Amino acid sequence: MSLLVVGSIAFDSVETPFGKVEEAIGGSAMFFSASASYFTDVKLVAVVGEDFPEAEIDFLQSRDVDCQGLHRKEGKTFRWEGKYGFDLNEAITLDTQLNVFGDFHPELPEDYRDAKSVFLANIDPELQLEVLEQVRDPDFVAADTMNYWIDGKRDALEAVLARVDMAVINESEARKLADESNMVQAARAIQKLGPRHVVIKRGEYGALCFADDEICFAPAYPLESVFDPTGAGDTFAGGLLGYLSRQGQFRPRDLRQATVLGCVMASFCVEDFSLESLRELDFNIIERRFEKFQRLVNFEPLELLDE
Amino acid sequence: MSLLVVGSIAFDSVETPFGKVEEAIGGSAMFFSASASYFTDVKLVAVVGEDFPEAEIDFLQSRDVDCQGLHRKEGKTFRWEGKYGFDLNEAITLDTQLNVFGDFHPELPEDYRDAKSVFLANIDPELQLEVLEQVRDPDFVAADTMNYWIDGKRDALEAVLARVDMAVINESEARKLADESNMVQAARAIQKLGPRHVVIKRGEYGALCFADDEICFAPAYPLESVFDPTGAGDTFAGGLLGYLSRQGQFRPRDLRQATVLGCVMASFCVEDFSLESLRELDFNIIERRFEKFQRLVNFEPLELLDE
Repeated sequence: MSLLVVGSIAFDSVETPFGKVEEAIGGSAMFFSASASYFTDVKLVAVVGEDFPEAEIDFLQSRDVDCQGLHRKEGKTFRWEGKYGFDLNEAITLDTQLNVFGDFHPELPEDYRDAKSVFLANIDPELQLEVLEQVRDPDFVAADTMNYWIDGKRDALEAVLARVDMAVINESEARKLADESNMVQAARAIQKLGPRHVVIKRGEYGALCFADDEICFAPAYPLESVFDPTGAGDTFAGGLLGYLSRQGQFRPRDLRQATVLGCVMASFCVEDFSLESLRELDFNIIERRFEKFQRLVNFEPLELLDE
Repeated sequence: MSLLVVGSIAFDSVETPFGKVEEAIGGSAMFFSASASYFTDVKLVAVVGEDFPEAEIDFLQSRDVDCQGLHRKEGKTFRWEGKYGFDLNEAITLDTQLNVFGDFHPELPEDYRDAKSVFLANIDPELQLEVLEQVRDPDFVAADTMNYWIDGKRDALEAVLARVDMAVINESEARKLADESNMVQAARAIQKLGPRHVVIKRGEYGALCFADDEICFAPAYPLESVFDPTGAGDTFAGGLLGYLSRQGQFRPRDLRQATVLGCVMASFCVEDFSLESLRELDFNIIERRFEKFQRLVNFEPLELLDE
């Protein structure tokens, strides 16, 4: 089942306590596509400027990502500059230059419109709606969003949520969207807005998946070196949706596995700047990391010795 | 194997977004004892003032907690006042009155000195050392601490850590103690100070256990109602050490189970103010919650369908 993604492609300049990188390749659609490409065929819709390197499009194509929907426009590519503090948990945005992304309107090539699974990355919910108008009969649609849209475009965002099967959002955004601090209640409130399933991204603490009325918890792997969390959330979504699209099934047990695979893919992402660590994975490496996750949370039935 | 705990007993006045409680029973030794009492015999060392209710000592004794080491002194019991914000993750201390706790020096009754497992709750590391001088030949010693001692009594704290088998500390304290933001490296650095095992408490995100060179991750249960996180860390330690003492074995696989049981006990603690929810548990209730934890993190080996 092919997977359509609509999102941003950017140059990211990032400073972490461990180093600095200038104008590295980033953006939600880029991380998502690289990650999902290990599981399924991805169809990408995004916009870049004249300054975007052809080699990166070659990389996507080498991963069998369909780039018909990747438009190159006159002007410069979207740029984001941010830094992370000691605990790497929250990015501080230093600068955003929308450039060609400023008047982006997603246009789906004809053969994208029959995509059966769709990921609406974190962009203006009005653009997310434009995408939903163009796809014909998807089996599964997931959407991400952020505080900026929760505050500024609530109505459009609610119209999106009413039409999706899954929301994939950060913990603090879930609290804000639901106006509820308790995470279980926040997820239930978001489900009432439309999505049957809600996946909460918790950064270095992993992810919670509310699949219908089941809950599953996927840990983040405690890594010895975390360089840069930029893109981890979109890489997570790429693993999650990539796996589901490949399986073509969306039962709670599939969602459980998918949530763990999301965390597996994110664990690679943070080990290097930009999407460097997503360029040359293979299925064996992914499987070995998945097994490490299993060992991490593996405990036995409770048995008490008599005192 | 009986379990010796030395810590504080307090009256806590706590405000959370869900309510307020005045002078409720609290303190590290109190939460720890109540929690551990579901697994093993506890010997308690602490001090209270004349205002401490006899009924609470009756409660401890009804749970078979040995109260020979619970001294009642002239004056008032230790008091703590704090509040929690929207996400319940961090307590803001509003007031602390040490009262009889101010000149507390732990004195172990003679038949406490052969205790085989020991928990040094978060008190002045100099007092923790006084306890270690009095126990004769323990098999397993664990200690908690906090930022205040990391900053103010580093030498005494290091002398404690050099003599314990396990450190049980909050995530931010681990980062501070090790001066290292990466949690794996922080735990490894703390292990170099002495303890073979390091357990990191992460509040609503569960706990990480570094048992020798193995890592395990225990989730916190996503509860529909979390009223008051006060005491959750000590309740966690009570489940952890209570289980280990009962089993009398301290292999990495025992530590895994113990870490999960710590999270199980903490999940009860936060469901009500003070230690209300720890008063009338039984083993069936604990076992059912444990099984919920297993389902929460249960995922299958990875299997990919062909596309």
